[in-house]
Amino acid sequence: MNDTFVVIGGDAAGMSAASKAKRERPDLDVVVFERGSWVSYAACGMPYYVKGDVTSLDELVTITPERFREERDIDLRTSHEVVDIDPEDETVTVANEEGTFEQSYDYLLVGTGASAIEPPFEGIELDGVFTIHQMDEADAIEAYVSEQSPETAAIVGGGYVGVEMAEALSAHGITVHLFEMLEHVLQPFGETVATTVEDHLRERGVVLHLETSVSGFTGENAIESVEVDGETHPADIAVVGVGVTPNVDLAAKAGVELGPTGAIATDEYGRTNFENIYAAGDCAEARHVVTGEPDHVPLALTANRAGRAIGQTVTDSPTPVGDIAGTAIVKAFDLGAARTGLVDEKRAQEAGFDPVSVTISAPTRAHYYPGGAELTITLLADRNTGRLLGGSLVGQEGAKRIDSIAMALHAEMTVTELQNADLAYAPPFSPVWDPVLTAAKVLDGKLD
Amino acid sequence: MNDTFVVIGGDAAGMSAASKAKRERPDLDVVVFERGSWVSYAACGMPYYVKGDVTSLDELVTITPERFREERDIDLRTSHEVVDIDPEDETVTVANEEGTFEQSYDYLLVGTGASAIEPPFEGIELDGVFTIHQMDEADAIEAYVSEQSPETAAIVGGGYVGVEMAEALSAHGITVHLFEMLEHVLQPFGETVATTVEDHLRERGVVLHLETSVSGFTGENAIESVEVDGETHPADIAVVGVGVTPNVDLAAKAGVELGPTGAIATDEYGRTNFENIYAAGDCAEARHVVTGEPDHVPLALTANRAGRAIGQTVTDSPTPVGDIAGTAIVKAFDLGAARTGLVDEKRAQEAGFDPVSVTISAPTRAHYYPGGAELTITLLADRNTGRLLGGSLVGQEGAKRIDSIAMALHAEMTVTELQNADLAYAPPFSPVWDPVLTAAKVLDGKLD
Repeated sequence: MNDTFVVIGGDAAGMSAASKAKRERPDLDVVVFERGSWVSYAACGMPYYVKGDVTSLDELVTITPERFREERDIDLRTSHEVVDIDPEDETVTVANEEGTFEQSYDYLLVGTGASAIEPPFEGIELDGVFTIHQMDEADAIEAYVSEQSPETAAIVGGGYVGVEMAEALSAHGITVHLFEMLEHVLQPFGETVATTVEDHLRERGVVLHLETSVSGFTGENAIESVEVDGETHPADIAVVGVGVTPNVDLAAKAGVELGPTGAIATDEYGRTNFENIYAAGDCAEARHVVTGEPDHVPLALTANRAGRAIGQTVTDSPTPVGDIAGTAIVKAFDLGAARTGLVDEKRAQEAGFDPVSVTISAPTRAHYYPGGAELTITLLADRNTGRLLGGSLVGQEGAKRIDSIAMALHAEMTVTELQNADLAYAPPFSPVWDPVLTAAKVLDGKLD
Repeated sequence: MNDTFVVIGGDAAGMSAASKAKRERPDLDVVVFERGSWVSYAACGMPYYVKGDVTSLDELVTITPERFREERDIDLRTSHEVVDIDPEDETVTVANEEGTFEQSYDYLLVGTGASAIEPPFEGIELDGVFTIHQMDEADAIEAYVSEQSPETAAIVGGGYVGVEMAEALSAHGITVHLFEMLEHVLQPFGETVATTVEDHLRERGVVLHLETSVSGFTGENAIESVEVDGETHPADIAVVGVGVTPNVDLAAKAGVELGPTGAIATDEYGRTNFENIYAAGDCAEARHVVTGEPDHVPLALTANRAGRAIGQTVTDSPTPVGDIAGTAIVKAFDLGAARTGLVDEKRAQEAGFDPVSVTISAPTRAHYYPGGAELTITLLADRNTGRLLGGSLVGQEGAKRIDSIAMALHAEMTVTELQNADLAYAPPFSPVWDPVLTAAKVLDGKLD
């Protein structure tokens, strides 16, 4: 009998693992259980569907269920929820509309993802109040916008989703109020990026309510207003994006260990405390390249990469899932904002470093060349070793330059080494010293 | 008496060194001799002046001579040519319009740059035949175009200068014929980039004559035609850009040793065979990060960086000039083309590697996100060690992604390590797997 690789969850991690394993070892039986109806979809594209840049949710699907089944010979079953894992018997219990059944496995991947956090807000069940983490939610928001033509929106939470949805809803002529509990939006990007983005959001008509806690929503059947610190603001639609929480209950009740972040603990191969149970994607931890410690940064590349590596490992070709640097990038109207590694001084101190930072602004092209924009870069390094710890940047062009900084983190470079990198220069593309090099140069001076 | 730092040549390397040395040690006397009248100028911007994107040559000057003298307290003397170096006496002989004089030095930097190669073409002295390496030449071309309104141009040489000048002259409605002796334009970028650029040049109306040797120019006083392989093509203007040669005669006759490339040999601090004589910029060699061997890649960042490091070293803070990766980027109409490290398989073999390469095409943004363009990437690695050796890319967006590859070379990463880099993803900026990661993934598969 063939070995069986069972995958729980049919999105980035799960489908990457299933595809890779089947390609490497065609005799392996690969079974994927997905409790919803969508698989292999780009959740990150949902705000652009709501905005109207993407005309159909189907466009967000990388590979259809049919193609997984027919072209890749993967036994993909949607609307199948795994309700129990028995590590001793090496079986999972699966529920579908007809009942439950058991499926045995030789290797198991938990790719259960994460869920949008739903705070205990009064009135969160009202019509017109949404989270946006599942494809069906994007569909519902789009439909509500078309049908109800809301004039005022309340966005709760100033993370990626909040910022992207502010842009998406503004594109429909909706006046957007964005409520953030903390002092700044985009908290993981650091203060310089945050204040630049905030100014830009205001310029584009978004009303920011920082350090403002939403307590609930009111309305008859549909939302009519949002309650904040005793005040009431009218709102015809609300989107709650206050973060995600890893879906770990299924694994945890089977004895799979969680790590310090609350996500599933894994080793460098994505293996859990059970030899043949792996975890990857938004439900799992990964090792942070700067701190060396487990971290939980639920992003698409991490999920895809870990899934793919596990797909190789279960075909007897052990492949590390790779470290993460917490690299992220977000569009806020005309701005690109990005971050990687440790950006927060306090967090760097907690990780045992003595952080020194600089912030510089430099043009993305030669000063005399038309176009281009100012890029503001913050770099953080350890005073004792000169090692680069992280960075962030923001500007109307060139936000992908964060990749140079991420590469430096993976290479454990010092600021001096980064400063000496031979990056590309020609007037239409960069000043002689790329802004990243300029930032490194200035930080290096401060470290002397 | 104060120590004296004498700098020969007032462009990138020289002025960077002078500025840094004076800033670090204000009591140092810093004297710069520049034989021309321009200092600290962006030679790379000249094609954009001819094109009309830059309206005045003054815009290409980063810092004026007055500011160097007044704000930075540097004794900068233009129209002063150093005609002799005496390493024993530690003096240089300087000629200006009034005669010659001697200047003693404690530290000397040779930053004599490079000159455009002028092949022994018949008729190269005709009016309307130009090289473009000096600011005065850019001025002369611009004037000739305005005054003579040429209809047909002959560009000799398909390197950066040739490709950039094709765009610049086309912008004036001039029909451009580009003559390249070799099989392809942009030879250091490899065949994939070259053929993509060639197709694009043709689409934009440039007539390419590949594997075609120019023998000379004919005309009464001004150029009227270009002679190639026995044929005659009409041409009202010609620009010869067949490469540069390092200006080493002054140094060589003083006993400064040249390296295998013909440029001045230097150690990791930019020091020549004389303890207190340094060389940097287009006249000097630098160490290639992949081969570990001396190389000569005369580009602006290398010059600036080495100059700055030498400015630190002569103030008793020894600073390596840093390795080069041969990173370069060029705009050809709507395309960006870039390269870094070893791109040519033959050269990789000569350096002792067993090269394996892949070429992939991938979009610069999520497939469903509007805009974006196809980026074609070639990566080269060593079969035995998996070490990345170099790469090239070409596309209408995202050419600065070459920096991620350059960073991997500086870090001496394997292809597997590059593939596992946590690069930034969001739909407006990249697919989940950045095209560089996709290329690494495919190459990694080929290396297994």
